[in-house]
Formats: sequence, structure tokens, C-alpha cells
Amino acid sequence: MSEYQINQRNKVKRIPDRGHYDHETVYAILDAGFLCHIGFVVNDQPFVIPTLYGRKDNKIYIHGASTSRMIKNLEKGFPVSLTVTHVDGLVLARSAFHHSMNYRSAVIFGTAKPVAPEKKDNALFVISENIIAGRWAESRKPNAKELKATAVLEIEIEQASAKIRTGGPKDDKPDYELNIWAGVIPMTMTYSEPLPDDLLKVSTPLPPSIKNLS
Amino acid sequence: MSEYQINQRNKVKRIPDRGHYDHETVYAILDAGFLCHIGFVVNDQPFVIPTLYGRKDNKIYIHGASTSRMIKNLEKGFPVSLTVTHVDGLVLARSAFHHSMNYRSAVIFGTAKPVAPEKKDNALFVISENIIAGRWAESRKPNAKELKATAVLEIEIEQASAKIRTGGPKDDKPDYELNIWAGVIPMTMTYSEPLPDDLLKVSTPLPPSIKNLS
Repeated sequence: MSEYQINQRNKVKRIPDRGHYDHETVYAILDAGFLCHIGFVVNDQPFVIPTLYGRKDNKIYIHGASTSRMIKNLEKGFPVSLTVTHVDGLVLARSAFHHSMNYRSAVIFGTAKPVAPEKKDNALFVISENIIAGRWAESRKPNAKELKATAVLEIEIEQASAKIRTGGPKDDKPDYELNIWAGVIPMTMTYSEPLPDDLLKVSTPLPPSIKNLS
Repeated sequence: MSEYQINQRNKVKRIPDRGHYDHETVYAILDAGFLCHIGFVVNDQPFVIPTLYGRKDNKIYIHGASTSRMIKNLEKGFPVSLTVTHVDGLVLARSAFHHSMNYRSAVIFGTAKPVAPEKKDNALFVISENIIAGRWAESRKPNAKELKATAVLEIEIEQASAKIRTGGPKDDKPDYELNIWAGVIPMTMTYSEPLPDDLLKVSTPLPPSIKNLS
């Protein structure tokens, strides 16, 4: 199982038992989500911006309007940090101090660079598939003008760390005698019933991509 | 309705109609969540770290182990960016290009500073209440040793912007003739049935704080 190089930048210092550095674990966290928070620096000021992404092999793709501030700054090739977090539950301990959260997070380090025009289409496909598999095939594909208006960046993952907490609360021994409820409240992101567009032709059926969403 | 000062740092440039700068809108987005992504810079390298938070008035509180890298760097008083994002739905258009997401996000700018020891307890209460209202009152409170091991930082919101997208897809006129499904798939974070700790005393009832979670 390949691992990212570990150094000061990506080492999980706080509760190191929760840290993972293998590609498999990092990729699984990335592939379970579609929204990341990407950080970049302009004149010593950090910016943290939410954006959609897709992964293929060891690369993450993001996109945006060619004119957006995020894109214009990221294109310059400064170092970025890109983080994906899944909240899996609230962990309620008997003591306030030992309350915690079950989560899976991946912190990625790399630099962004523009995807060449002839490769944009495929990179957008990767992002689209990561959000709703099969949707790209159902949609009207981007034309030349739309592709031109869309900037796509790739971030080769130089280093990464994953951090995962699972399981129940851990209390101090004397606190187990207290009559205070303790346990986990699982949390999950859920899809509700699709709402058809008002202008949808009546004959248009719900496509497979939506039926396959869990 | 008070507004944050708008300048290059917080101005929403891409689709400015989605931008909001009033305290009320920013606070509502903050209060609807409990996990933020905070960005800080160490030697030109940005770090984006997920962390829990609470808000009171124009201040955001975060906490961590006194020994954590995030805390040690943030305490130095460098500029931070702190972002909260709620995913409300996937917006499926007829064209791949017009696919979008319904969301509410708030990007906060400020600097972090340590909360004085005598005010830590109250700041932790603010964070706890934001995650599960009423839970603090049910828990065994932090003792002196626990308070010492916990660093609490406050970030006065200097500037902020909110960005919100709601509603259905907007397609190009000719695409409305296509037989492609379009609409919104609502998404929401949900709580499942609480899982009691194995070591819970059988007589311990489910507390009001959990019953009140929606």
C-alpha cells in the first residue's frame, strides 16, 4: 500500500493514532465527497473557498469561471491546501471534556495548474462523475464557448494525511458511575425526493443517474 | 441591518447577486452549522483544518488541545479565513455547463487570539451549545486540569461575506426543448437513532438535548 511521504507539513500531531497516510485511505475519503475547502494565500491573507472536485489517480480536478478570483490565484501555482471532511456522528461523553465527533477528513497539499484546453472536457467529466455518476452521459455536453468560459485546474497530490475517528465515547474512569447519557448520534448527508424543474417536459422520465443515488 | 465593510478581501466577484454582507445573513449561516474549515499560513504554506465552533455576537470561538499545531499557529495572531458551507441540493440542468449546487456559505476574515483563562469556561459553553443545545447542562463540567489542557481562541469577525444559491436550474433557451430531466435533488444533514454507549447504566434515560435535535 503506497504512502505519502510524511514530514512536518502533513504529520498528524494531535492524537497520531487517528492519522493515515496511505493512498487508499485518502482516496476513499476524497471519493466519498464532492465538496472541498481549498486554501490559498494572497499577500499573506489566507482564503478558504468551498468548491466542487473530482479525483482521478493521484490528481484532483476543480473548476470555475475563468474570471473567478479563486481560479486566477490558484493558476499562479502557489501552494494550496485542500480539505474534505465527512461528519459521521456526534460523540456524547459523560464529561463535557470528552465530547467528540466521529469524522473522516483528508488534508491535501499540492499546487494547482491549468488543465490544457484539449484535456478540459475529460477533467470536467471526472468532476461530474464524482458528483453524480452517469449524469454527464445524460446531459447536453459543453460546447466550445462553454469550455472556454470554464477554467479547470489539476492538483497533483504531493502529500496528504487522513484523520479518522470512529466509535463511542471514552470517559474518565470515575465518570462511568454518573447517571449521564453517553453514546453516539450518527449523522449522514441524505438526498430527498427530486424536485422536477417547472419547465420540464411532462414526458421526461427520472434518469438512471438519480435513481442510483443512495 | 448592519453590514460588514466591503472591499477586495470579501467582495463576492463571481455572480455578485449571490453575495450578502449583512450580519444577520452571515450569523444565520454560522448558527446553522458547527463545523468550519479554518485557514492559516505557516511559511507561505496554507493549512485548511476542520474544527468545531460556536458564535456569540460578532465573535467565533474555537478550541483545541493547547499542544495542537492549529492552536499554536493561530494564537500568534496571523490573519485567518474561516469558512462554513451548507450543501442544500444538487441542481441538475439540461446542459452539463449549467449544473450547479444550492448552498449557503460564509467566509469570515479576522485574527484569532487566546481567550483568557477565566473566560474559557463560558467560551466552551458557547461552542457546546452551538453543537447540541442543552448538552452542557447535562454533562460533568470541565475541572481545572481539563480547562488548562484546552486552549480556546476567539475570532472577532472583521469582515465576512455570505454566498447563497437557491432554486432550480437555469438553462439556455434552446435546451428547454431537450428531453433531459432537470430539477433539484435536495440534500440535508440528518441525525439517526442515538446509539447508547455499551457501558451506559441501564437506568439512564435519553436526555432532552438529544430529543430536541431535529
